Amino acid sequence: LPGRKVLIVYAHQEPKSLNGSLKSVAVEELSKQGCSVTVSDLYAMQFEPRATRNDIVGRLHNLEEFDYGVEVREAYKRGDLSSDLIEEQKKVQEADLLIFQFPLYWFSMPAIMKGWMDRVLVEGFAHQFPDCYSSGFLKNKLALFSFTTGGSQEMYTKGGISGDIRYLLWPMQHGIMHYCGVKVLAPHICFAPESVSEEERKEMLLAWAQRLKTLWKEKPIDCSPEWYFK
Amino acid sequence: LPGRKVLIVYAHQEPKSLNGSLKSVAVEELSKQGCSVTVSDLYAMQFEPRATRNDIVGRLHNLEEFDYGVEVREAYKRGDLSSDLIEEQKKVQEADLLIFQFPLYWFSMPAIMKGWMDRVLVEGFAHQFPDCYSSGFLKNKLALFSFTTGGSQEMYTKGGISGDIRYLLWPMQHGIMHYCGVKVLAPHICFAPESVSEEERKEMLLAWAQRLKTLWKEKPIDCSPEWYFK
Repeated sequence: LPGRKVLIVYAHQEPKSLNGSLKSVAVEELSKQGCSVTVSDLYAMQFEPRATRNDIVGRLHNLEEFDYGVEVREAYKRGDLSSDLIEEQKKVQEADLLIFQFPLYWFSMPAIMKGWMDRVLVEGFAHQFPDCYSSGFLKNKLALFSFTTGGSQEMYTKGGISGDIRYLLWPMQHGIMHYCGVKVLAPHICFAPESVSEEERKEMLLAWAQRLKTLWKEKPIDCSPEWYFK
Repeated sequence: LPGRKVLIVYAHQEPKSLNGSLKSVAVEELSKQGCSVTVSDLYAMQFEPRATRNDIVGRLHNLEEFDYGVEVREAYKRGDLSSDLIEEQKKVQEADLLIFQFPLYWFSMPAIMKGWMDRVLVEGFAHQFPDCYSSGFLKNKLALFSFTTGGSQEMYTKGGISGDIRYLLWPMQHGIMHYCGVKVLAPHICFAPESVSEEERKEMLLAWAQRLKTLWKEKPIDCSPEWYFK
Protein backbone atom coordinates (compact mmCIF):
# COMPACT_ATOMS: atom_id res chain seq x y z
CA LEU A 1 0.00 0.00 0.00
CA PRO A 2 1.37 3.44 -0.87
CA GLY A 3 2.88 5.10 2.17
CA ARG A 4 3.21 1.94 4.21
CA LYS A 5 6.59 1.35 5.81
CA VAL A 6 8.27 -2.02 5.85
CA LEU A 7 11.39 -3.16 7.70
CA ILE A 8 13.04 -6.32 6.42
CA VAL A 9 15.38 -7.88 8.96
CA TYR A 10 17.53 -10.14 6.84
CA ALA A 11 20.07 -12.74 7.91
CA HIS A 12 22.01 -14.48 5.19
CA GLN A 13 25.70 -14.30 4.40
CA GLU A 14 25.30 -14.65 0.63
CA PRO A 15 23.43 -12.15 -1.57
CA LYS A 16 23.14 -14.82 -4.30
CA SER A 17 21.34 -17.24 -1.98
CA LEU A 18 17.63 -17.96 -2.19
CA ASN A 19 17.21 -15.96 1.02
CA GLY A 20 19.00 -13.07 -0.66
CA SER A 21 16.67 -13.35 -3.66
CA LEU A 22 13.57 -13.59 -1.46
CA LYS A 23 14.70 -10.39 0.25
CA SER A 24 15.27 -8.64 -3.08
CA VAL A 25 11.90 -9.77 -4.39
CA ALA A 26 10.24 -8.26 -1.32
CA VAL A 27 12.11 -4.97 -1.67
CA GLU A 28 11.15 -4.78 -5.33
CA GLU A 29 7.51 -5.77 -5.03
CA LEU A 30 6.78 -3.63 -1.98
CA SER A 31 8.58 -0.62 -3.44
CA LYS A 32 6.53 -1.03 -6.61
CA GLN A 33 3.41 -0.77 -4.45
CA GLY A 34 4.66 2.56 -3.13
CA CYS A 35 5.78 1.25 0.24
CA SER A 36 8.95 2.60 1.75
CA VAL A 37 11.22 -0.35 2.47
CA THR A 38 14.21 -0.49 4.81
CA VAL A 39 16.52 -3.49 5.09
CA SER A 40 18.62 -4.41 8.10
CA ASP A 41 21.16 -6.72 6.48
CA LEU A 42 22.52 -8.21 9.69
CA TYR A 43 25.63 -9.99 8.39
CA ALA A 44 26.60 -7.04 6.20
CA MET A 45 26.17 -4.75 9.23
CA GLN A 46 28.18 -7.21 11.31
CA PHE A 47 25.34 -6.86 13.75
CA GLU A 48 26.38 -7.69 17.33
CA PRO A 49 24.27 -10.55 18.76
CA ARG A 50 25.73 -10.59 22.28
CA ALA A 51 23.87 -8.83 25.07
CA THR A 52 26.62 -7.14 27.04
CA ARG A 53 27.57 -4.09 29.03
CA ASN A 54 28.56 -2.41 25.75
CA ASP A 55 24.87 -1.84 25.01
CA ILE A 56 24.78 0.80 27.73
CA VAL A 57 26.57 4.09 27.16
CA GLY A 58 28.16 5.59 30.25
CA ARG A 59 27.53 4.68 33.84
CA LEU A 60 25.61 1.60 34.94
CA HIS A 61 22.50 1.71 37.09
CA ASN A 62 23.86 -1.00 39.41
CA LEU A 63 27.63 -1.11 39.75
CA GLU A 64 27.61 -4.13 42.04
CA GLU A 65 25.85 -6.70 39.93
CA PHE A 66 25.19 -6.56 36.22
CA ASP A 67 21.61 -7.40 35.25
CA TYR A 68 21.26 -6.93 31.48
CA GLY A 69 17.48 -6.52 31.50
CA VAL A 70 17.55 -3.87 34.22
CA GLU A 71 20.47 -2.00 32.69
CA VAL A 72 19.01 -1.71 29.19
CA ARG A 73 15.61 -0.75 30.59
CA GLU A 74 17.23 2.08 32.55
CA ALA A 75 19.51 3.04 29.66
CA TYR A 76 16.50 3.21 27.34
CA LYS A 77 14.78 5.65 29.73
CA ARG A 78 17.88 7.85 29.86
CA GLY A 79 18.47 7.64 26.09
CA ASP A 80 21.73 5.84 26.81
CA LEU A 81 21.46 2.73 24.67
CA SER A 82 24.27 2.14 22.19
CA SER A 83 23.73 3.81 18.83
CA ASP A 84 23.20 0.58 16.86
CA LEU A 85 20.23 -0.26 19.09
CA ILE A 86 18.73 3.22 18.89
CA GLU A 87 18.93 3.00 15.12
CA GLU A 88 17.18 -0.38 14.95
CA GLN A 89 14.49 0.80 17.36
CA LYS A 90 13.83 3.82 15.14
CA LYS A 91 13.34 1.52 12.16
CA VAL A 92 10.96 -0.68 14.15
CA GLN A 93 9.04 2.33 15.45
CA GLU A 94 8.43 3.63 11.96
CA ALA A 95 7.53 0.30 10.39
CA ASP A 96 3.99 -0.92 9.77
CA LEU A 97 5.27 -4.36 8.85
CA LEU A 98 8.36 -6.31 9.94
CA ILE A 99 9.53 -9.11 7.66
CA PHE A 100 12.11 -11.52 9.04
CA GLN A 101 13.96 -13.31 6.24
CA PHE A 102 16.34 -16.12 7.19
CA PRO A 103 17.35 -19.76 6.78
CA LEU A 104 16.06 -21.91 9.63
CA TYR A 105 18.98 -22.87 11.89
CA TRP A 106 18.19 -25.53 14.47
CA PHE A 107 14.40 -25.05 14.57
CA SER A 108 14.84 -21.31 15.04
CA MET A 109 16.44 -18.20 13.62
CA PRO A 110 20.22 -17.82 13.22
CA ALA A 111 21.99 -16.45 16.31
CA ILE A 112 22.64 -13.11 14.62
CA MET A 113 18.88 -12.57 14.28
CA LYS A 114 18.15 -13.88 17.79
CA GLY A 115 20.62 -11.26 18.96
CA TRP A 116 18.59 -8.61 17.15
CA MET A 117 15.52 -9.73 19.13
CA ASP A 118 17.45 -9.95 22.42
CA ARG A 119 18.98 -6.49 22.08
CA VAL A 120 16.49 -4.34 20.15
CA LEU A 121 13.19 -5.25 21.83
CA VAL A 122 14.09 -3.57 25.11
CA GLU A 123 11.68 -3.26 28.04
CA GLY A 124 10.11 0.20 27.93
CA PHE A 125 10.42 0.29 24.15
CA ALA A 126 8.61 -2.88 23.05
CA HIS A 127 6.81 -3.98 26.23
CA GLN A 128 6.65 -3.38 29.94
CA PHE A 129 4.91 -5.96 32.05
CA PRO A 130 1.89 -6.14 32.29
CA ASP A 131 1.86 -4.33 28.94
CA CYS A 132 2.50 -7.38 26.81
CA TYR A 133 0.62 -9.46 24.25
CA SER A 134 -2.51 -7.48 23.30
CA SER A 135 -1.19 -4.39 25.09
CA GLY A 136 2.46 -4.68 24.01
CA PHE A 137 3.93 -1.39 22.84
CA LEU A 138 4.34 -2.51 19.22
CA LYS A 139 0.65 -3.08 18.64
CA ASN A 140 -0.71 -1.86 15.30
CA LYS A 141 2.29 -3.43 13.62
CA LEU A 142 2.46 -6.64 11.63
CA ALA A 143 5.20 -9.25 11.46
CA LEU A 144 5.88 -12.04 9.01
CA PHE A 145 8.48 -14.80 9.32
CA SER A 146 9.80 -15.82 5.92
CA PHE A 147 12.33 -18.63 5.94
CA THR A 148 13.91 -21.56 4.16
CA THR A 149 14.44 -25.00 5.66
CA GLY A 150 16.97 -27.76 5.17
CA GLY A 151 14.46 -30.51 5.92
CA SER A 152 11.61 -31.45 3.63
CA GLN A 153 7.96 -30.57 4.11
CA GLU A 154 7.15 -34.20 5.01
CA MET A 155 9.67 -34.13 7.88
CA TYR A 156 7.85 -31.07 9.25
CA THR A 157 4.39 -32.60 9.58
CA LYS A 158 2.50 -33.81 12.62
CA GLY A 159 3.56 -37.42 12.01
CA GLY A 160 6.98 -36.52 10.60
CA ILE A 161 10.23 -36.88 12.55
CA SER A 162 10.62 -33.15 13.01
CA GLY A 163 7.00 -32.50 13.98
CA ASP A 164 4.57 -29.92 12.64
CA ILE A 165 6.46 -26.84 11.44
CA ARG A 166 4.05 -24.76 13.55
CA TYR A 167 5.52 -26.21 16.76
CA LEU A 168 8.75 -24.33 16.20
CA LEU A 169 7.00 -21.09 15.30
CA TRP A 170 5.62 -20.68 18.83
CA PRO A 171 8.70 -19.08 20.44
CA MET A 172 9.28 -16.73 17.51
CA GLN A 173 5.73 -15.69 16.64
CA HIS A 174 4.03 -15.90 20.02
CA GLY A 175 6.94 -15.57 22.45
CA ILE A 176 8.55 -12.60 20.74
CA MET A 177 6.29 -10.77 18.28
CA HIS A 178 2.93 -11.37 19.91
CA TYR A 179 4.45 -10.62 23.33
CA CYS A 180 5.31 -7.13 22.02
CA GLY A 181 1.76 -6.67 20.72
CA VAL A 182 2.67 -7.27 17.07
CA LYS A 183 0.08 -9.12 15.00
CA VAL A 184 1.47 -12.03 13.05
CA LEU A 185 0.75 -12.86 9.43
CA ALA A 186 0.99 -16.48 8.27
CA PRO A 187 4.63 -17.52 7.84
CA HIS A 188 6.12 -17.92 4.40
CA ILE A 189 8.12 -21.12 4.17
CA CYS A 190 10.31 -22.43 1.35
CA PHE A 191 10.97 -26.07 2.15
CA ALA A 192 14.34 -27.59 1.27
CA PRO A 193 15.28 -25.26 -1.61
CA GLU A 194 18.68 -26.97 -1.84
CA SER A 195 17.01 -30.25 -2.78
CA VAL A 196 14.94 -28.93 -5.67
CA SER A 197 15.66 -27.80 -9.22
CA GLU A 198 16.61 -24.30 -10.30
CA GLU A 199 13.18 -24.15 -11.92
CA GLU A 200 11.40 -24.90 -8.66
CA ARG A 201 13.49 -22.31 -6.82
CA LYS A 202 12.34 -19.75 -9.38
CA GLU A 203 8.77 -20.77 -8.67
CA MET A 204 9.41 -20.17 -5.00
CA LEU A 205 10.45 -16.60 -5.78
CA LEU A 206 7.40 -16.07 -7.96
CA ALA A 207 5.09 -17.43 -5.26
CA TRP A 208 6.55 -14.96 -2.76
CA ALA A 209 6.17 -12.03 -5.17
CA GLN A 210 2.61 -13.16 -5.82
CA ARG A 211 1.75 -13.34 -2.14
CA LEU A 212 3.18 -9.88 -1.52
CA LYS A 213 0.79 -8.37 -4.07
CA THR A 214 -2.16 -8.97 -1.77
CA LEU A 215 -0.32 -9.02 1.55
CA TRP A 216 -2.04 -5.94 2.92
CA LYS A 217 -5.41 -7.64 2.57
CA GLU A 218 -4.37 -10.61 4.71
CA LYS A 219 -5.77 -11.10 8.19
CA PRO A 220 -3.31 -11.94 11.00
CA ILE A 221 -3.38 -15.48 12.35
CA ASP A 222 -5.08 -16.23 15.62
CA CYS A 223 -1.86 -16.41 17.66
CA SER A 224 -3.12 -18.80 20.32
CA PRO A 225 -2.01 -22.34 21.29
CA GLU A 226 -4.76 -23.78 19.06
CA TRP A 227 -3.12 -22.42 15.94
CA TYR A 228 0.17 -24.09 16.88
CA PHE A 229 -0.70 -27.32 18.64
CA LYS A 230 -4.29 -28.28 17.85
CA LEU B 1 29.54 -40.69 39.04
CA PRO B 2 33.33 -40.96 39.30
CA GLY B 3 34.96 -40.68 35.91
CA ARG B 4 31.96 -39.16 34.15
CA LYS B 5 32.65 -36.05 32.13
CA VAL B 6 30.39 -33.04 32.14
CA LEU B 7 30.44 -29.95 29.95
CA ILE B 8 28.55 -26.93 31.24
CA VAL B 9 27.78 -24.40 28.54
CA TYR B 10 27.05 -21.27 30.50
CA ALA B 11 25.68 -17.95 29.29
CA HIS B 12 25.39 -15.17 31.84
CA GLN B 13 27.30 -11.90 31.98
CA GLU B 14 27.43 -11.71 35.80
CA PRO B 15 29.17 -14.29 38.02
CA LYS B 16 27.11 -13.07 41.01
CA SER B 17 23.81 -13.79 39.25
CA LEU B 18 21.59 -16.73 40.13
CA ASN B 19 22.69 -18.34 36.85
CA GLY B 20 26.29 -17.89 37.94
CA SER B 21 25.49 -19.53 41.27
CA LEU B 22 23.61 -22.39 39.62
CA LYS B 23 26.66 -23.00 37.44
CA SER B 24 28.99 -22.95 40.46
CA VAL B 25 26.72 -25.30 42.40
CA ALA B 26 26.84 -27.77 39.50
CA VAL B 27 30.64 -27.56 39.22
CA GLU B 28 30.98 -28.13 42.95
CA GLU B 29 28.48 -30.94 43.34
CA LEU B 30 29.56 -32.86 40.23
CA SER B 31 33.25 -32.47 41.10
CA LYS B 32 32.51 -33.79 44.58
CA GLN B 33 31.04 -36.87 42.92
CA GLY B 34 34.32 -37.41 41.09
CA CYS B 35 33.10 -36.17 37.72
CA SER B 36 35.43 -34.12 35.60
CA VAL B 37 33.69 -30.84 34.83
CA THR B 38 34.49 -28.36 32.07
CA VAL B 39 32.77 -24.98 31.73
CA SER B 40 32.40 -23.00 28.52
CA ASP B 41 31.71 -19.55 29.93
CA LEU B 42 30.47 -18.00 26.71
CA TYR B 43 30.45 -14.30 27.66
CA ALA B 44 33.84 -14.55 29.38
CA MET B 45 35.20 -16.27 26.24
CA GLN B 46 33.55 -13.58 24.13
CA PHE B 47 32.24 -16.50 22.12
CA GLU B 48 31.38 -15.55 18.54
CA PRO B 49 27.69 -16.28 17.76
CA ARG B 50 27.75 -15.31 14.06
CA ALA B 51 28.03 -18.02 11.45
CA THR B 52 30.42 -16.55 8.90
CA ARG B 53 33.21 -17.28 6.49
CA ASN B 54 35.65 -16.84 9.39
CA ASP B 55 34.69 -20.30 10.65
CA ILE B 56 36.54 -21.82 7.73
CA VAL B 57 40.33 -21.68 7.67
CA GLY B 58 41.84 -21.26 4.23
CA ARG B 59 40.21 -21.76 0.90
CA LEU B 60 36.47 -22.16 0.43
CA HIS B 61 34.86 -25.19 -1.20
CA ASN B 62 32.68 -22.98 -3.41
CA LEU B 63 34.17 -19.63 -4.33
CA GLU B 64 31.11 -18.50 -6.29
CA GLU B 65 28.39 -18.71 -3.69
CA PHE B 66 28.85 -18.99 0.08
CA ASP B 67 26.71 -21.70 1.67
CA TYR B 68 27.56 -21.84 5.37
CA GLY B 69 26.29 -25.38 5.93
CA VAL B 70 28.23 -26.78 2.98
CA GLU B 71 31.40 -24.89 3.83
CA VAL B 72 31.60 -25.98 7.47
CA ARG B 73 30.74 -29.55 6.53
CA GLU B 74 33.64 -29.58 4.08
CA ALA B 75 35.95 -27.71 6.46
CA TYR B 76 35.16 -30.24 9.20
CA LYS B 77 36.21 -33.09 6.88
CA ARG B 78 39.48 -31.33 6.04
CA GLY B 79 40.14 -30.35 9.67
CA ASP B 80 39.85 -26.72 8.63
CA LEU B 81 37.31 -25.35 11.08
CA SER B 82 38.40 -22.34 13.13
CA SER B 83 40.20 -23.24 16.36
CA ASP B 84 37.41 -22.06 18.68
CA LEU B 85 35.03 -24.54 17.05
CA ILE B 86 37.50 -27.42 17.15
CA GLU B 87 37.99 -26.75 20.84
CA GLU B 88 34.27 -26.79 21.61
CA GLN B 89 33.76 -29.93 19.56
CA LYS B 90 36.49 -31.67 21.57
CA LYS B 91 34.72 -30.76 24.79
CA VAL B 92 31.42 -32.08 23.42
CA GLN B 93 33.04 -35.26 22.16
CA GLU B 94 34.50 -36.05 25.57
CA ALA B 95 31.41 -35.20 27.58
CA ASP B 96 28.87 -37.73 28.86
CA LEU B 97 26.53 -34.94 29.91
CA LEU B 98 25.96 -31.43 28.53
CA ILE B 99 24.35 -28.92 30.86
CA PHE B 100 23.11 -25.66 29.33
CA GLN B 101 22.79 -22.95 31.97
CA PHE B 102 21.18 -19.66 30.93
CA PRO B 103 18.46 -17.09 31.52
CA LEU B 104 15.52 -17.54 29.15
CA TYR B 105 15.60 -14.74 26.56
CA TRP B 106 12.49 -14.50 24.41
CA PHE B 107 11.23 -18.09 24.87
CA SER B 108 14.68 -19.42 23.98
CA MET B 109 18.35 -19.27 24.81
CA PRO B 110 20.40 -16.05 24.56
CA ALA B 111 21.88 -15.41 21.11
CA ILE B 112 25.39 -16.17 22.33
CA MET B 113 24.29 -19.71 23.22
CA LYS B 114 22.26 -20.11 20.03
CA GLY B 115 25.47 -19.21 18.23
CA TRP B 116 27.23 -22.04 20.06
CA MET B 117 24.58 -24.44 18.71
CA ASP B 118 24.70 -22.96 15.20
CA ARG B 119 28.49 -23.13 14.94
CA VAL B 120 29.61 -26.12 17.01
CA LEU B 121 27.11 -28.79 15.97
CA VAL B 122 28.45 -29.08 12.45
CA GLU B 123 27.22 -31.66 9.94
CA GLY B 124 29.62 -34.58 9.95
CA PHE B 125 30.46 -33.98 13.60
CA ALA B 126 27.03 -34.05 15.28
CA HIS B 127 24.76 -35.47 12.55
CA GLN B 128 24.64 -36.24 8.87
CA PHE B 129 21.25 -36.84 7.33
CA PRO B 130 19.74 -39.46 7.59
CA ASP B 131 21.87 -39.98 10.72
CA CYS B 132 19.79 -37.84 12.98
CA TYR B 133 17.52 -38.31 16.00
CA SER B 134 18.08 -41.87 17.26
CA SER B 135 21.11 -42.27 14.98
CA GLY B 136 22.60 -38.80 15.49
CA PHE B 137 26.36 -38.87 16.07
CA LEU B 138 26.11 -37.65 19.68
CA LYS B 139 24.09 -40.59 20.90
CA ASN B 140 25.12 -42.01 24.27
CA LYS B 141 25.30 -38.48 25.60
CA LEU B 142 22.84 -36.70 27.85
CA ALA B 143 21.75 -33.06 27.84
CA LEU B 144 19.96 -30.95 30.42
CA PHE B 145 18.59 -27.44 29.95
CA SER B 146 18.80 -25.47 33.20
CA PHE B 147 17.41 -21.96 33.04
CA THR B 148 15.79 -19.06 34.81
CA THR B 149 12.72 -17.18 33.62
CA GLY B 150 11.45 -13.63 33.94
CA GLY B 151 7.80 -14.69 33.91
CA SER B 152 6.09 -16.59 36.70
CA GLN B 153 5.21 -20.27 36.71
CA GLU B 154 1.50 -19.42 36.32
CA MET B 155 2.20 -17.51 33.11
CA TYR B 156 3.88 -20.65 31.74
CA THR B 157 0.99 -23.06 32.10
CA LYS B 158 -1.39 -24.47 29.53
CA GLY B 159 -4.03 -21.86 30.33
CA GLY B 160 -1.51 -19.08 31.08
CA ILE B 161 -0.74 -16.23 28.69
CA SER B 162 2.67 -17.62 27.81
CA GLY B 163 1.51 -21.22 27.38
CA ASP B 164 2.96 -24.42 28.82
CA ILE B 165 6.70 -24.03 29.38
CA ARG B 166 7.17 -27.29 27.49
CA TYR B 167 6.00 -25.65 24.25
CA LEU B 168 9.16 -23.59 24.12
CA LEU B 169 11.42 -26.51 24.95
CA TRP B 170 10.61 -28.26 21.68
CA PRO B 171 13.12 -26.42 19.43
CA MET B 172 15.93 -26.68 21.98
CA GLN B 173 15.44 -30.20 23.30
CA HIS B 174 13.97 -31.96 20.27
CA GLY B 175 15.14 -29.77 17.40
CA ILE B 176 18.76 -29.49 18.52
CA MET B 177 19.79 -32.08 21.10
CA HIS B 178 17.53 -34.96 20.10
CA TYR B 179 18.32 -34.29 16.43
CA CYS B 180 21.98 -34.97 17.23
CA GLY B 181 21.06 -38.20 19.03
CA VAL B 182 21.50 -36.77 22.54
CA LYS B 183 19.08 -38.02 25.15
CA VAL B 184 17.41 -35.28 27.14
CA LEU B 185 16.94 -35.18 30.90
CA ALA B 186 14.02 -33.22 32.36
CA PRO B 187 14.74 -29.49 32.30
CA HIS B 188 15.59 -27.63 35.49
CA ILE B 189 13.67 -24.39 35.70
CA CYS B 190 13.89 -21.58 38.24
CA PHE B 191 10.82 -19.43 37.71
CA ALA B 192 11.07 -15.67 38.19
CA PRO B 193 14.01 -15.58 40.63
CA GLU B 194 14.00 -11.78 40.49
CA SER B 195 10.51 -11.69 41.98
CA VAL B 196 11.25 -13.83 45.04
CA SER B 197 13.12 -13.34 48.31
CA GLU B 198 16.82 -13.97 48.87
CA GLU B 199 15.73 -16.93 50.99
CA GLU B 200 13.78 -18.49 48.13
CA ARG B 201 16.68 -17.99 45.77
CA LYS B 202 18.85 -19.91 48.20
CA GLU B 203 16.31 -22.69 48.18
CA MET B 204 16.53 -22.75 44.40
CA LEU B 205 20.28 -23.35 44.66
CA LEU B 206 19.76 -26.10 47.23
CA ALA B 207 17.13 -27.81 45.11
CA TRP B 208 19.54 -27.87 42.16
CA ALA B 209 22.37 -29.30 44.30
CA GLN B 210 19.93 -31.87 45.61
CA ARG B 211 18.81 -32.93 42.16
CA LEU B 212 22.39 -33.29 40.97
CA LYS B 213 23.09 -35.83 43.71
CA THR B 214 20.91 -38.40 42.00
CA LEU B 215 21.14 -37.08 38.44
CA TRP B 216 22.91 -40.15 37.06
CA LYS B 217 19.99 -42.32 38.11
CA GLU B 218 17.49 -40.25 36.12
CA LYS B 219 15.88 -41.62 32.97
CA PRO B 220 15.74 -39.36 29.91
CA ILE B 221 12.36 -37.95 28.95
CA ASP B 222 10.43 -39.43 26.06
CA CYS B 223 11.35 -36.71 23.58
CA SER B 224 8.24 -37.01 21.39
CA PRO B 225 5.45 -34.53 20.61
CA GLU B 226 3.32 -36.10 23.37
CA TRP B 227 5.76 -34.93 26.06
CA TYR B 228 5.54 -31.37 24.79
CA PHE B 229 2.03 -30.84 23.51
CA LYS B 230 -0.23 -33.51 24.96
